[in-house]
Amino acid sequence: MEINKETITDWLKNLQDSICNSLEQADGAAKFEEENWIRNEGGGGRTRIIKEGNVIEKGGVLFSAVSGDAPDFLFNEKEHSSSTSNLQSNETKLKPQFFATGVSIVIHPKNPMVPIIHMNIRYFEMPARAGGDGGVKWLGGGIDLTPHYIFENDAKFFHTQLKKVCDKHNLNYYSKFKKWADDYFYINHRKETRGIGGIFFDRLNTDSESDSYRMSFEKNFAFWQDVGQAFAPIYVELINRNKNKSFTEKNKQWQLLRRGRYVEFNLIYDKGTKFGLETNGRVESILMSLPKIAGWEYDFKTEKNSEEEKTLNLLKKDIAWA
Amino acid sequence: MEINKETITDWLKNLQDSICNSLEQADGAAKFEEENWIRNEGGGGRTRIIKEGNVIEKGGVLFSAVSGDAPDFLFNEKEHSSSTSNLQSNETKLKPQFFATGVSIVIHPKNPMVPIIHMNIRYFEMPARAGGDGGVKWLGGGIDLTPHYIFENDAKFFHTQLKKVCDKHNLNYYSKFKKWADDYFYINHRKETRGIGGIFFDRLNTDSESDSYRMSFEKNFAFWQDVGQAFAPIYVELINRNKNKSFTEKNKQWQLLRRGRYVEFNLIYDKGTKFGLETNGRVESILMSLPKIAGWEYDFKTEKNSEEEKTLNLLKKDIAWA
Repeated sequence: MEINKETITDWLKNLQDSICNSLEQADGAAKFEEENWIRNEGGGGRTRIIKEGNVIEKGGVLFSAVSGDAPDFLFNEKEHSSSTSNLQSNETKLKPQFFATGVSIVIHPKNPMVPIIHMNIRYFEMPARAGGDGGVKWLGGGIDLTPHYIFENDAKFFHTQLKKVCDKHNLNYYSKFKKWADDYFYINHRKETRGIGGIFFDRLNTDSESDSYRMSFEKNFAFWQDVGQAFAPIYVELINRNKNKSFTEKNKQWQLLRRGRYVEFNLIYDKGTKFGLETNGRVESILMSLPKIAGWEYDFKTEKNSEEEKTLNLLKKDIAWA
Repeated sequence: MEINKETITDWLKNLQDSICNSLEQADGAAKFEEENWIRNEGGGGRTRIIKEGNVIEKGGVLFSAVSGDAPDFLFNEKEHSSSTSNLQSNETKLKPQFFATGVSIVIHPKNPMVPIIHMNIRYFEMPARAGGDGGVKWLGGGIDLTPHYIFENDAKFFHTQLKKVCDKHNLNYYSKFKKWADDYFYINHRKETRGIGGIFFDRLNTDSESDSYRMSFEKNFAFWQDVGQAFAPIYVELINRNKNKSFTEKNKQWQLLRRGRYVEFNLIYDKGTKFGLETNGRVESILMSLPKIAGWEYDFKTEKNSEEEKTLNLLKKDIAWA
């Protein structure tokens, strides 16, 4: 396929369809409800929400493709790297037009033995403007897992699958993007990771990449597509491994606390959430990542040698799961 | 009493004692548990938590008094207003020592007909340092109410009581501090206020106050004490008015959603929370403000002419409750 805005958009919509089908099948009861929305400044989205299923308590698979005047912070960022155009006055500049599209997923399962998962893949472009320097286009994304209880076999499986996807395209990618996820999904005030990480990457195919990691846009695009397609088989496998496990009231309480941490991360640190809320994005789509219910307890301490303590001890950076 | 660090600290500890007594009596079942903590860099606190009561589901009444090297951002802020000292190099400056003490309260009741309340009063000082200009000392604080369901009589009572406290000291204070609360306790991405506001003030007795509001530090201190002492009688009255009202499962669901908004405000906007988490504060004390459980629902819509809709319509700035 030729790679341009239209073909990327179509491909992402198909990916959304196929992931929703896989998740509905894995759930066995709930169906996605769709809401189409339009952005006043340009573009829109197709939000799909699933809830009260056999397996999934609350989740969303969101597609969006938006465009318009680049927000000032992007504009300025580009200015910083362009010394000649700084000489122009602000009045005479034409704001560059940006285009951004992606699919974002967060799934909160009912059973605390099934992990929370998050996936996002996104494409961004901003063409050159009259009198300015060249345009940019880049790819970003990742998949990461937040088990309420960490099962080492599942963690190994999850990371091994992601490593396979990376290794197929670039042998440097997994270690780089795994570390990036560890650093990104970190709840600094708790000094704990959000979950067991996964992979995270941003601005692929720009000059900010050092030489050893550089690949053509076409090759990075193929990698990026594989990340998107890896999501459903990986998560369906994790669902099937754990959905029938029994759990206690204590396990549910712990799930609420882990979800509380998830809320803390998303509202305090997550760049996409911050950016969306600050730029007047669609609040309901942005905050679909929050669980149906979450909890906080003052100074909760895990019991010695409990499963909860074991999990907490594994919420650290730099564990070599794969 | 002479007003200095020691007498203010003692007064605040006594206030904490007396508020805890009033709340225990109003609850009728639960008792506060106390935890004393020490801050490595100087000072510490006395955290008191109450939970699973007849009336109170989760709440905290916190005293702290901390001191040490002023954080860089305070230091710099002071520098900005001092043109001469900017000529000194950073190396030769002695960091000023700050002292901050206060009492903070958040109470989440069980019954959705009883409102959430928040109170904070704080004192800050930073003495002059060698070669620098004069020191600063200021008072801040406020009380605000977040009903899950807004009852107009209660809202009027609440604001009228606060206005009385203000009017006793300065006839300009209520309107100024009421507006300040409306502006501060605002969930910008939702375009709704956190609750019905109350009063909020900061940096009383500094040059930033315009002349018409200026009072001596002593007079402001008396006002500030009255705010602290107004808390318990006001909230106990609101508890007694509402604690025996019956409620449905639907009311409880709505309470969870309102608490979700409370979490959004505290984690995204609240300056005290942000400052605390960024400066390595005591996480469990800072986040005691979060409810035991909170909820989120995708694109929740209130029913037409329901109590929930009525409440939502009153979550606006500039309602003249008093």
